[in-house]
Amino acid sequence: MAEDERPLDDDEVMLAPETESAAEDGARPDDRIDDERMDEENTLKPAFVRSVEAALDAGETGAVYDLVEPLHPADVADLLELFEREERHQLAAAITDLMTSEVVAELNDYVREEMMEALPAGRVAQIAEQLETDDAVQLIEDLDEDDQRAILAELDPEDRIAIQTALSYPEETAGRLMSRDFVAVPEHVTVGDIIDFLREGRNLPEDFLEVFVVDQRMHPVGTCQLSWILRTPRDVALGDVMKRDQTLIPADLDQEEVALMFQKYGLISAAVIDGDGRLVGQMTVDDIVHIISEEAGEDALLMSGAGEGDINEPIREAYSSRVRWLVANLGTALVASLIIAMFGAAIEQLVALAVLMPIVASIGGNAGTQTMAVTVRAIAMNQLTRSNTGRILLREFRVAMLNGATIAILVGLATAAVFTPTLGAVIALAMIINVATAGLAGVLVPVAFERLDQDPAVASSVFVTMITDSMGFFAFLGLAVASGIVSA
Amino acid sequence: MAEDERPLDDDEVMLAPETESAAEDGARPDDRIDDERMDEENTLKPAFVRSVEAALDAGETGAVYDLVEPLHPADVADLLELFEREERHQLAAAITDLMTSEVVAELNDYVREEMMEALPAGRVAQIAEQLETDDAVQLIEDLDEDDQRAILAELDPEDRIAIQTALSYPEETAGRLMSRDFVAVPEHVTVGDIIDFLREGRNLPEDFLEVFVVDQRMHPVGTCQLSWILRTPRDVALGDVMKRDQTLIPADLDQEEVALMFQKYGLISAAVIDGDGRLVGQMTVDDIVHIISEEAGEDALLMSGAGEGDINEPIREAYSSRVRWLVANLGTALVASLIIAMFGAAIEQLVALAVLMPIVASIGGNAGTQTMAVTVRAIAMNQLTRSNTGRILLREFRVAMLNGATIAILVGLATAAVFTPTLGAVIALAMIINVATAGLAGVLVPVAFERLDQDPAVASSVFVTMITDSMGFFAFLGLAVASGIVSA
Repeated sequence: MAEDERPLDDDEVMLAPETESAAEDGARPDDRIDDERMDEENTLKPAFVRSVEAALDAGETGAVYDLVEPLHPADVADLLELFEREERHQLAAAITDLMTSEVVAELNDYVREEMMEALPAGRVAQIAEQLETDDAVQLIEDLDEDDQRAILAELDPEDRIAIQTALSYPEETAGRLMSRDFVAVPEHVTVGDIIDFLREGRNLPEDFLEVFVVDQRMHPVGTCQLSWILRTPRDVALGDVMKRDQTLIPADLDQEEVALMFQKYGLISAAVIDGDGRLVGQMTVDDIVHIISEEAGEDALLMSGAGEGDINEPIREAYSSRVRWLVANLGTALVASLIIAMFGAAIEQLVALAVLMPIVASIGGNAGTQTMAVTVRAIAMNQLTRSNTGRILLREFRVAMLNGATIAILVGLATAAVFTPTLGAVIALAMIINVATAGLAGVLVPVAFERLDQDPAVASSVFVTMITDSMGFFAFLGLAVASGIVSA
Repeated sequence: MAEDERPLDDDEVMLAPETESAAEDGARPDDRIDDERMDEENTLKPAFVRSVEAALDAGETGAVYDLVEPLHPADVADLLELFEREERHQLAAAITDLMTSEVVAELNDYVREEMMEALPAGRVAQIAEQLETDDAVQLIEDLDEDDQRAILAELDPEDRIAIQTALSYPEETAGRLMSRDFVAVPEHVTVGDIIDFLREGRNLPEDFLEVFVVDQRMHPVGTCQLSWILRTPRDVALGDVMKRDQTLIPADLDQEEVALMFQKYGLISAAVIDGDGRLVGQMTVDDIVHIISEEAGEDALLMSGAGEGDINEPIREAYSSRVRWLVANLGTALVASLIIAMFGAAIEQLVALAVLMPIVASIGGNAGTQTMAVTVRAIAMNQLTRSNTGRILLREFRVAMLNGATIAILVGLATAAVFTPTLGAVIALAMIINVATAGLAGVLVPVAFERLDQDPAVASSVFVTMITDSMGFFAFLGLAVASGIVSA
C-alpha cells in the first residue's frame, strides 16, 4: 500500500498501488429487501434475532450459519452488536467464514476493539491485511501500544509502512482517514491513453470516482470525474477535460473540518495533500458520512455530559465520563444552595418561597438550555462567527424577553390567585430576569468557550445551569425581601 | 426534466434527459485556499465581511462586486446569511450576476425562503429553471401555495411536470430529494456501445456516478460503477460487469431512513424506485449529507425544546416553538412544587431542607438527561431495538447505581459535616434513589415514545425532568420525615 514517490515520466500513467481488499461481489442475494430478517426501518427483526439466539444456545452451529449467511455485512455487524459479550464470541465462532473484513469494518468501535483484543495478534494482522488502509488504521489505532506493535510485526512490510505512515498523522485527521489508493496521471495524457491503461492495469483501486491530474512533483493541478472521461473522444488530452478548481484537503486537517468541507462544497471525493502540497491520498464521502453523523450527534451527548455516549461503551468508561460531570454539577448546585442559605430566615417566615423557588430556577434552566443548544449547533455548523455574534445575541435576547414575559404572566397570575398579588408580582419579575439572563448566558457561555478554543458543547451546560439556578433563586428570594413580604 | 416512460427498444441506450443547470466551470480561481477571505476554519474572515459591509454602506456597488466575485458559491451563500435582512437584499442587488442557482441552492432554508418571497414569481421561476429538479423542489416546496402556483405557471411545461411529480411525493421523502437525471441501459449493451453513446450523447446528466441496468419494464436489474466500465474491454456486455446486488430506495421512504441506509451500506449513489419497482430517479450521497447532519444534529435541539433551532428562523417562529416547551415545563415544575408544598411543615421546622433539596433534584435531572441523550441517540442510529432494550436498561441502571453511589458518598459526608449525620444519611439515600430513578426513566421514557411512534427526542426531556425533580424532592423530604428529623 505504500505510495510510489518518484517523479512521473512523461508518458506514464501513474497509479497508486492497490490494497488486496476488493469487495467480494456476486455471491449475495438479488437485492436487499429481506422481509424475513429486516423490518421496515431496515433493522433486524426481533424474531430473527431470537431465532439466532435460540440456535446459539442449542449449540446448532450449522443452523446459526444458515440464518446469518444471507445478511449484508453491515447487518452481520449489527447482529453482533445486539448480543452480549459472551454470546457475541459464540456467534463469531459459529460464523467464522462470514466474519469478513467488511463485517469488521462495519462494527461499532467499542465492539470491534473488544473482539480484536480477544483474538491473537496473528489473526488480527490477517484481518488488517484484508482491509483498506483506512479501515485497517481504524482497527489498530484504538488498541494498546503492545498489541499494535505485535500486529504490525505480523503484517507485510508494504502494509506495515502504509499503516505506520497513516498512524504518524494525529488522531482524527484527514491523514488517518484517507485512502492511499487513488489514480493520478500527468496533464498531457489523453482520454484514450487512460482508458487503455485502466483496461490493462492491475494495481487499480477497486472503486474510484475521479482521476487526479498532477504535475511532475505530484502537486495536483486538476481533477476529472469519470463521467467526463467516458463522454470525451479518445484523442483529447485530460488537461482539456479536467476542472482546475478543486478542493484540496490538508492531511493534518481535523476530521470535523474535513466533514464540514465535504458538506459545504457538496464533495463526493477530494484529494488529500501533505505539507508540501503533494497528493498523498484521497477521501470519498462514504468515509466521511459517519463522521458527519458522529460530529453532529455528539453535541447532544456532550451537552448532557454523557461523554461518548455509545451504548456499547464499557460500563467503567461510561461511569467515569459521566460521574465527572455529575460532580461538576454538584459544585454548581452548591452555589445555588449557598444562595438559598443566605435567605434562610426569609424561607422560615414564608414557606411558600421554598415551594415556588424551584419553578423560577427550572424554567430559567430550560430557557438557557434551548438557547445554548441553538448556539452550539450554529457554532458547530460554522454559522455563528465573529461577524454575526452581536446580531445573534440580540436575536436570542429578544426571543428570551418574549418567552420570559409569557411565562411571567402565567406564573404571576397563578401565584397572585393562590398566594398574594405581591408574591405574584415578585415571581413574575424574577422570571423575566431569569429567562433574560438565560438567553444571554445561552449565547455568551458557548461563544466564550469557542473563543478559548474549548469545545462549546462540553462545558457550557454546567455553567449555563449554574447561572440560571443561582439567578433564579437570587432574583426570587431577593425580590421577596426587597418587596417587604419577608425580612432578610 | 420529465422522464421518458416507454419500454426500451432492444438496442437503445436509454438516458434520462438533462436539466439545463450545468456547473459553470473554468472561471474560478485555481484552488480554494483563499487566505485573504477565509480563515483556517474555512469560514469568512470578519475583516473581509466588514469590508463588504463598509462598501455596501458607502454604496460602492462595484467594490462590493469585486470583493465577492472570487468567492465559491457556498461562501457567497454564507456571506448573505451573515447579514441582516435589509443589508442582505442590498448585497444581493449589488451582485446580481453572482447570484447563481448554485448560490441559491446553498442558502439556508429560512434565508432562501425570505429572499424568494421578496422576488417576483417570474424571477423565481427563472432561478428554478436553472436548478436541478431536487434543488428546484426545495426552493418551491416551502413557499405559500399561491406563490407556488404562480411560479409553476411561469415554468417550461417539462420542468413544471418534473417539479409537480416530485411535489406529489410526501415531504421529506426520497421522491422529493431524488434527481430524475440518471443513465439507465438494457443488460445486453456492451461497454463499447455505452462509451460511444456517452461520447455522442447530448441529454446526459452533468455528473453521474453509476450506470443503472434495467429490464424492459424499467425494473433495475443491476448497477455498474463508472470505474468498472472504464477498466473493461469494449466487447464485454454490461450484464457481465454489473453488480446484481444493489440497494433500492422506495420513493416514499422517509429521508431519515434514506440517510441511515446510505450510512449503513456506505452508498455513494442509489436507485430510487416507485411502488411498481420501476426506476424513477437516483440519489447521490452529496444530496444526503446535509440530511444526515440535520437529523443527527436536531436531537440536541429537540431535547432542549428549541424546535428547528436555526439561527435564521424568524423570531416569531422561534418564540412560538420554544415557549410551548417552557409552558409544558411550567406544568411539570408545578408537580414538583406540589410535592414540596406537601412538606411545608417539615421545611418550616428545618430550613436546611429547603437549602439542600435542589441539589438532589438537580443531580437527578443531570443524570437523567445523560441517560436520555444516550438512549435517544441509540434509537436514532437504529442501535437500540426491541432485541436489546432489556440489556441496555440493565446497563444504564448499573451506570446509574455507580454514579448515584459516588455522588451520595460526597453529598452525604459533606452534609453530615455541615449539618447532622442523620441529615447526611437522608440526603445520601435520597440521591441514590433519585439517580437510579433517573437511569431507568432516561431509558424507559424515550423507548416508550418510540414505541408509540413519537419522536423520542421531542418530549422525553420534559417527562424525564418531571420524574427526577419530583422524585428528588419527594425522596429527600419524605426520608427526612421518615427518619424523624422533622415531623410532617
